[in-house]
Amino acid sequence: MNEDIESLLEKVRQGTVSIEEASLRLRKAPFVDLGYAKVDTQRSLRQGVPEVIYGAGKTAEQILGITKVLSADSDRPVLITRLDAEKAKSLQEQLPLTYYPDGRIGLVGEFPKPDGIGTILVLSAGTSDRPVAEEAVLTARALGNEVKAFHDVGVAGLHRLLAHLDDMMEATVIIAIAGMEGALASVVGGLVSCPVIAVPTSIGYGAAFGGMTALCSMLNSCASGVSVVNIDNGFGAAYQASLINHVKGDVRK
Amino acid sequence: MNEDIESLLEKVRQGTVSIEEASLRLRKAPFVDLGYAKVDTQRSLRQGVPEVIYGAGKTAEQILGITKVLSADSDRPVLITRLDAEKAKSLQEQLPLTYYPDGRIGLVGEFPKPDGIGTILVLSAGTSDRPVAEEAVLTARALGNEVKAFHDVGVAGLHRLLAHLDDMMEATVIIAIAGMEGALASVVGGLVSCPVIAVPTSIGYGAAFGGMTALCSMLNSCASGVSVVNIDNGFGAAYQASLINHVKGDVRK
Amino acid sequence: MNEDIESLLEKVRQGTVSIEEASLRLRKAPFVDLGYAKVDTQRSLRQGVPEVIYGAGKTAEQILGITKVLSADSDRPVLITRLDAEKAKSLQEQLPLTYYPDGRIGLVGEFPKPDGIGTILVLSAGTSDRPVAEEAVLTARALGNEVKAFHDVGVAGLHRLLAHLDDMMEATVIIAIAGMEGALASVVGGLVSCPVIAVPTSIGYGAAFGGMTALCSMLNSCASGVSVVNIDNGFGAAYQASLINHVKGDVRK
Amino acid sequence: MNEDIESLLEKVRQGTVSIEEASLRLRKAPFVDLGYAKVDTQRSLRQGVPEVIYGAGKTAEQILGITKVLSADSDRPVLITRLDAEKAKSLQEQLPLTYYPDGRIGLVGEFPKPDGIGTILVLSAGTSDRPVAEEAVLTARALGNEVKAFHDVGVAGLHRLLAHLDDMMEATVIIAIAGMEGALASVVGGLVSCPVIAVPTSIGYGAAFGGMTALCSMLNSCASGVSVVNIDNGFGAAYQASLINHVKGDVRK
Amino acid sequence: MNEDIESLLEKVRQGTVSIEEASLRLRKAPFVDLGYAKVDTQRSLRQGVPEVIYGAGKTAEQILGITKVLSADSDRPVLITRLDAEKAKSLQEQLPLTYYPDGRIGLVGEFPKPDGIGTILVLSAGTSDRPVAEEAVLTARALGNEVKAFHDVGVAGLHRLLAHLDDMMEATVIIAIAGMEGALASVVGGLVSCPVIAVPTSIGYGAAFGGMTALCSMLNSCASGVSVVNIDNGFGAAYQASLINHVKGDVRK
Amino acid sequence: MNEDIESLLEKVRQGTVSIEEASLRLRKAPFVDLGYAKVDTQRSLRQGVPEVIYGAGKTAEQILGITKVLSADSDRPVLITRLDAEKAKSLQEQLPLTYYPDGRIGLVGEFPKPDGIGTILVLSAGTSDRPVAEEAVLTARALGNEVKAFHDVGVAGLHRLLAHLDDMMEATVIIAIAGMEGALASVVGGLVSCPVIAVPTSIGYGAAFGGMTALCSMLNSCASGVSVVNIDNGFGAAYQASLINHVKGDVRK
Amino acid sequence: MNEDIESLLEKVRQGTVSIEEASLRLRKAPFVDLGYAKVDTQRSLRQGVPEVIYGAGKTAEQILGITKVLSADSDRPVLITRLDAEKAKSLQEQLPLTYYPDGRIGLVGEFPKPDGIGTILVLSAGTSDRPVAEEAVLTARALGNEVKAFHDVGVAGLHRLLAHLDDMMEATVIIAIAGMEGALASVVGGLVSCPVIAVPTSIGYGAAFGGMTALCSMLNSCASGVSVVNIDNGFGAAYQASLINHVKGDVRK
Amino acid sequence: MNEDIESLLEKVRQGTVSIEEASLRLRKAPFVDLGYAKVDTQRSLRQGVPEVIYGAGKTAEQILGITKVLSADSDRPVLITRLDAEKAKSLQEQLPLTYYPDGRIGLVGEFPKPDGIGTILVLSAGTSDRPVAEEAVLTARALGNEVKAFHDVGVAGLHRLLAHLDDMMEATVIIAIAGMEGALASVVGGLVSCPVIAVPTSIGYGAAFGGMTALCSMLNSCASGVSVVNIDNGFGAAYQASLINHVKGDVRK
Repeated sequence: MNEDIESLLEKVRQGTVSIEEASLRLRKAPFVDLGYAKVDTQRSLRQGVPEVIYGAGKTAEQILGITKVLSADSDRPVLITRLDAEKAKSLQEQLPLTYYPDGRIGLVGEFPKPDGIGTILVLSAGTSDRPVAEEAVLTARALGNEVKAFHDVGVAGLHRLLAHLDDMMEATVIIAIAGMEGALASVVGGLVSCPVIAVPTSIGYGAAFGGMTALCSMLNSCASGVSVVNIDNGFGAAYQASLINHVKGDVRK
Repeated sequence: MNEDIESLLEKVRQGTVSIEEASLRLRKAPFVDLGYAKVDTQRSLRQGVPEVIYGAGKTAEQILGITKVLSADSDRPVLITRLDAEKAKSLQEQLPLTYYPDGRIGLVGEFPKPDGIGTILVLSAGTSDRPVAEEAVLTARALGNEVKAFHDVGVAGLHRLLAHLDDMMEATVIIAIAGMEGALASVVGGLVSCPVIAVPTSIGYGAAFGGMTALCSMLNSCASGVSVVNIDNGFGAAYQASLINHVKGDVRK
Repeated sequence: MNEDIESLLEKVRQGTVSIEEASLRLRKAPFVDLGYAKVDTQRSLRQGVPEVIYGAGKTAEQILGITKVLSADSDRPVLITRLDAEKAKSLQEQLPLTYYPDGRIGLVGEFPKPDGIGTILVLSAGTSDRPVAEEAVLTARALGNEVKAFHDVGVAGLHRLLAHLDDMMEATVIIAIAGMEGALASVVGGLVSCPVIAVPTSIGYGAAFGGMTALCSMLNSCASGVSVVNIDNGFGAAYQASLINHVKGDVRK
Repeated sequence: MNEDIESLLEKVRQGTVSIEEASLRLRKAPFVDLGYAKVDTQRSLRQGVPEVIYGAGKTAEQILGITKVLSADSDRPVLITRLDAEKAKSLQEQLPLTYYPDGRIGLVGEFPKPDGIGTILVLSAGTSDRPVAEEAVLTARALGNEVKAFHDVGVAGLHRLLAHLDDMMEATVIIAIAGMEGALASVVGGLVSCPVIAVPTSIGYGAAFGGMTALCSMLNSCASGVSVVNIDNGFGAAYQASLINHVKGDVRK
Repeated sequence: MNEDIESLLEKVRQGTVSIEEASLRLRKAPFVDLGYAKVDTQRSLRQGVPEVIYGAGKTAEQILGITKVLSADSDRPVLITRLDAEKAKSLQEQLPLTYYPDGRIGLVGEFPKPDGIGTILVLSAGTSDRPVAEEAVLTARALGNEVKAFHDVGVAGLHRLLAHLDDMMEATVIIAIAGMEGALASVVGGLVSCPVIAVPTSIGYGAAFGGMTALCSMLNSCASGVSVVNIDNGFGAAYQASLINHVKGDVRK
Repeated sequence: MNEDIESLLEKVRQGTVSIEEASLRLRKAPFVDLGYAKVDTQRSLRQGVPEVIYGAGKTAEQILGITKVLSADSDRPVLITRLDAEKAKSLQEQLPLTYYPDGRIGLVGEFPKPDGIGTILVLSAGTSDRPVAEEAVLTARALGNEVKAFHDVGVAGLHRLLAHLDDMMEATVIIAIAGMEGALASVVGGLVSCPVIAVPTSIGYGAAFGGMTALCSMLNSCASGVSVVNIDNGFGAAYQASLINHVKGDVRK
Repeated sequence: MNEDIESLLEKVRQGTVSIEEASLRLRKAPFVDLGYAKVDTQRSLRQGVPEVIYGAGKTAEQILGITKVLSADSDRPVLITRLDAEKAKSLQEQLPLTYYPDGRIGLVGEFPKPDGIGTILVLSAGTSDRPVAEEAVLTARALGNEVKAFHDVGVAGLHRLLAHLDDMMEATVIIAIAGMEGALASVVGGLVSCPVIAVPTSIGYGAAFGGMTALCSMLNSCASGVSVVNIDNGFGAAYQASLINHVKGDVRK
Repeated sequence: MNEDIESLLEKVRQGTVSIEEASLRLRKAPFVDLGYAKVDTQRSLRQGVPEVIYGAGKTAEQILGITKVLSADSDRPVLITRLDAEKAKSLQEQLPLTYYPDGRIGLVGEFPKPDGIGTILVLSAGTSDRPVAEEAVLTARALGNEVKAFHDVGVAGLHRLLAHLDDMMEATVIIAIAGMEGALASVVGGLVSCPVIAVPTSIGYGAAFGGMTALCSMLNSCASGVSVVNIDNGFGAAYQASLINHVKGDVRK
């Protein structure tokens, strides 16, 4: 951004850009205003990834509008998360959208080729945690990562988890997904030496408090190297894992 | 109690006990009223164990008074929990009390010979959980149990826990003590086939919420066979474990 | 497990098992991977009881698949908890499943003969706590226990509870189920000398907080010998009670 | 108050009170403004009882000032609650104050003769609940009530409570005081047909949450006829009980 | 109860009642066991009021069964609370039940003649608090009380409340019902000298927390003489108010 | 109000108003009692704005009744908030009501001409916060304010917010609306020197706790000059903003 | 800020400021970096008020350093909040600081002449709320406001509050301060037509939850025109009130 | 670990290690048991970093013992966190320990040479967040990272933060530390394209809830690429950041 400012100022000095125009550009950052949303058309430049649309609070019409702006601007895929089947169907009438019901994910375009440092490993504790795991897997793939996933590896059956010890040892980042008491994050965190992103899920009842117990449990992990995202936020974990898997010495160089 | 009622009624019919007296006895259960406390002198009969004095909310004088009544009535040991060093010192001037500072336990009398079915195994996750573990160990011993204990076996270093797998397999009851995320209960519960009593501790900070996270975590254990007592309640866990270790087909026979 | 390791190692030394194979066996514990679930076919060996299927987060198809694997492997019954009527009906088309709607329990196979030490007594406070009580009763029976149950014996009508004092005195373990203020656990705990497993229920409104008040109340029971399971977890209480009712001196001998 | 308005207006019509004066009187209700406090000198008229001084948030100087105004105005006793020993000592140098350390109560003047309908019965569950019970007992006496009290009658030892069944049956109002799980309120409420005022106390640890568990427990009492005051509010319970013990058909007649 | 015991014992001494029988009677208190409920047929004797049926957790069939037992035993009315319209309609086919939809109350029999000391005044803060107010009004009437009620008198329009100052001054007990911030209880409590029973309601949104804010607010009322019942518990407030309005010096005389 | 009292008293002195009548008027403040509601017909005089009807807890019939009373009394518009589409449709059959579905607002009458000091600026963080923003915009307009609004200006895309810096600098009051972490309030509060009214919304999931996180976040804003209203309370923010935008040196002069 | 950008760009075009320099100035906003703090020397320009130092988390040395920078830069007073007596004393050795212990406020310089639109009225409910009220009063004065204050006007003694109705009617902004149930905000909000800033205090015990009950209560005020600041935040309320009392049509003109 | 198992099995086959011995080694992982702690002497091998000692719950003696074992085994530095000044002083008598009081960190040995991919940038919002920031900085350095840090860059003074935009753009990982409303994480997360580890601090009062508000706020960050650690856990953030800064494609290769 700094360089942009300097090049703009250079143009002002040369007189090729007027002061008013420069002032405007400085304040009006590059986005398309649809009224209901300001679509960030240069985000892939600034953050290295395409705009992701959080589908939960938006109508099919709004999602369609945003997707069109984004598609016009770039040939990278557009990822729509928390997309229910009904909206997906309605969107498919106007967009070449592939819908993944297990992870409630829609994708316009193709999954890119993996270009990360290594592999992201997704581990989920129980069968019911699957949707969150799918959201993480699909997001990570859409962001250009090699992904492996194992399900139903909760700590109550430790041997099921340990059966995947090799994959755990080889992973670049691990996403550990669990509801109920969320102990998976601590056990995994204690076994490996790569970063672990823990995702609490809302699975459980009673004193599970909709994922709050798993969340607090993971924040208190007795293993080092574990950080946590919001309840059921498979997308957020994958996004963070992807950033880690693409990490660079000096991002701007 | 039923038999007592019937035998009392038999005496009424025989005229050896008056109606007024019988009515009185039925309502006035056997305790000594010290004003500040009603000491239950027949509890060891009714519940099979000596009265335990919860020392936290009582003055040294009150504890002394209660202990004297209990000692007069029985030759079983008197256990005083949550006893701070100062009160212990003051009590020792008047009572043959042995004080265990690590578990904040005072004992008047000797530890009885173990007479339980098997062994109670106490596992604690971290060095800081030690006081709760000591409370559990001493309580269990005072209640007539064979006890084994291993400390610092939290799940972040799984190999430390698995090193004691044999003892875990052989235990009759296990007390699993952990603060922070309390994952120890789930991992232990998944490995063994005996009852596990989980004790959350107040160890941790931030989102540990003084033990609430460990408590809820343990209540949501994905392993079956785990029940839970209050935060830091090493005594309660040991008491329950001792009942289990002395369990009988028909308690009254 | 230790013995298995030793016998495996013995075979390695004798050369009947290759090193690679042994390594594989050590890490690949015995379960069947269905993709959506890893079914533990040797759990009845390791833990002495059949696999129990938690039906709440699974589709009828998934339950069917898991049940088939388990049935193939053993002739012990398969217990499916939190099974709604619709899924039960769908399963009955393919399985000899008996459905108990009050406790939302499905059973494939017969209830085994009771082989426990004594009797498990289930007490529930109000009419609305019945479903949780049924879950406990059926689970305990499926795990091979003699079970008695009394309903609507909450402490507001103390005489209703005391009418069952004999049964309470004779029980080996008591499961005390109550919503609202959960006082039943404390009163029962004060009367008996066997272990009491308390189950808070979500019955109540306002400051009952969906069972949280009963849960905390039970954790703070002024009676010793009470431990607690999660809200509405009739299954967990029965499982723990059954372990207690089958307790042994040295489980491995 | 209505009558006062009418009589004031009558005087306006007669010209004996000017409009400005009447307006002033209507708005300026009768209290003495000490700057740090507005002392209500006619409250005993309006509410039938003397001003009670809540001592917790006030300096000895402020308490002294308020007491002097109140004493000047009436010969009824002045009750100071939540008064610590140090302030009490300081006040005693200037006032004929009797200090009751157990209930942290100071009294200037004599306890009045009981003039209520019947007896207020104070029941407390444990030895540690004593201070709250004393606050209730002394407050009730200061407000002109016959009071009886029994301590250490918690539900874990039901026979201790039932020993006082006669007194419970004869009471006009019962104040039930308990910490931990607060079950006393429900058991008492189920046994009697008089109003029960429940006082949760902050006694307990862990999931007792400083009295919150007892509070919610009492609010969810399965017995009818129980209402609740704030945690540790022995004064408030006694005040309410005294109003009940002095209840009239038409207060203004 | 004491007298019953003595008279029973007298019969034992005379030989007209056998010991076994007496023992049975002592333990088997007078209720009819319907399996799903133990109906307390002598409660009106013991507590002076008819059994009230809490309709929320019961099927129409269960309510019908309980009502029949109660009606057979007494000619006092039977009150069914939290009764939805559908169940009411189904009950009306078999019972002479009058249904009050505003308060979700069903009544079998007639409202009794008021026989209390004075009048119960019900005040509710907003239009949306009406159902809780109706539950209180109808309950109080069913329990034999003179009742007055004013609605929409919340403290934001103080003049609306003060318009009823005369009625407030003359009441024997006041029930103050409010959601949101529940300030009505404090303002009313400061104006009157009779007991105030406060009922928080679940009306409000956001930080109202389903009535928890109003509940805590009322428990912290800066006015003395206020006690509180559970959220939306109009029945409980009326029950307590009725006990107060029928209070006696010595209940047993 | 003071002046009214004096003028009323003057009339009493002159004999043009009787004492009884004056007493009545003093206590019976000016409202029309519809039974289910007391409609405040002079509120626009006392508070300078028309009565606003909170539609959420009221039936269409009740809203209709209240609107009629208010319309009869004044020619200022009547604002109905939290009005769902169905009730709006039903009301439109009997009233000239304009319905704004985005903000769930109904308006009877015209928006008044803005007569405030300056402009109210409404900023909302995300597309999903729009309904709350609309409620604020429409309320502010109905109360006579010039309003500007920008949506989707959350802090994750700082440039979108800074694009409106000029409008922020020129505003008289700013309403900052955000769910999730509610950071918008702090960033805006740090940039401007006018009062900021923050509105947390219930948008978000997991640890957003239905708006509680945004609420607490805004209350802890590290920027000065921010005050907060209840979750989703766009109306309340606009009402407060309008009061500020119409603020006067001495309201009564 | 916009104008600054334009004038800076103008200088770039004229060549009097180099591009590098301009870029630097744009990013390096005007503050002095002390290492432990970045002191904002131009904040009084940007926000119209002097820097206020929050004293709670800072050492006396740090406060001294910041004050010196601020004093060097401006002749407006420096306000230090949450300043304990000890630090104040230490600061007074090096600075001409006036310390107000009741409000824990230090002031370097003189209170400015009031230049606001009208008067800020501070109302506090109880004697214990005084420190928060003092913080508000002193802050408001330091920010150039005419301030009035009345203490001990809680709603339990409504006449004490109504005695100040005239002042309430004439105020430009009201700050309503209350702990416990916080009802003062609702009652005041219902009486006046100026903005009310509510300050919950941590006064109270038990279910007061350290001010949380008052906070939620105020957020749910049934009166419109009330907004809320953090618990005990007298400073924040006064800051907001001062902004309101100095509000302008277009801040930048 | 797999390779270890294979090589051990190889030795078994060759007969150089007995079966019993092999079984033992498999179960007894490499740690030194001090009784109060099991010190993990091979952790630096397994996890690539030295053992870190959490000092908070340990006595100086225990810390000394653990440090000695660790130092004997390796020449990498030993890091002791949450070490108070008193214990540090006591340790320095026996160990060459350097103590950093600001971050409560003790270091035995030298900071290693940075060997990470790039730079870790530590940003803290307020002066009071400094201790947590220091813990993060020192931990990151001890784990072999290049570290930069800027303090007092909270979002209320956006220009202070933006002054460091270049450093933010160039960082490999950013640690964002803030208390109160924790908005720093969202603003930073929206500006950069590297992973952000957010650390909530316990700084704040009232509705800050000891850091809970900042924690939840950060978990709900509207910016992607933010994960969170426990309150005040500067160590945990630095540990995770260091793992990211040393991330590898296949950790085991």
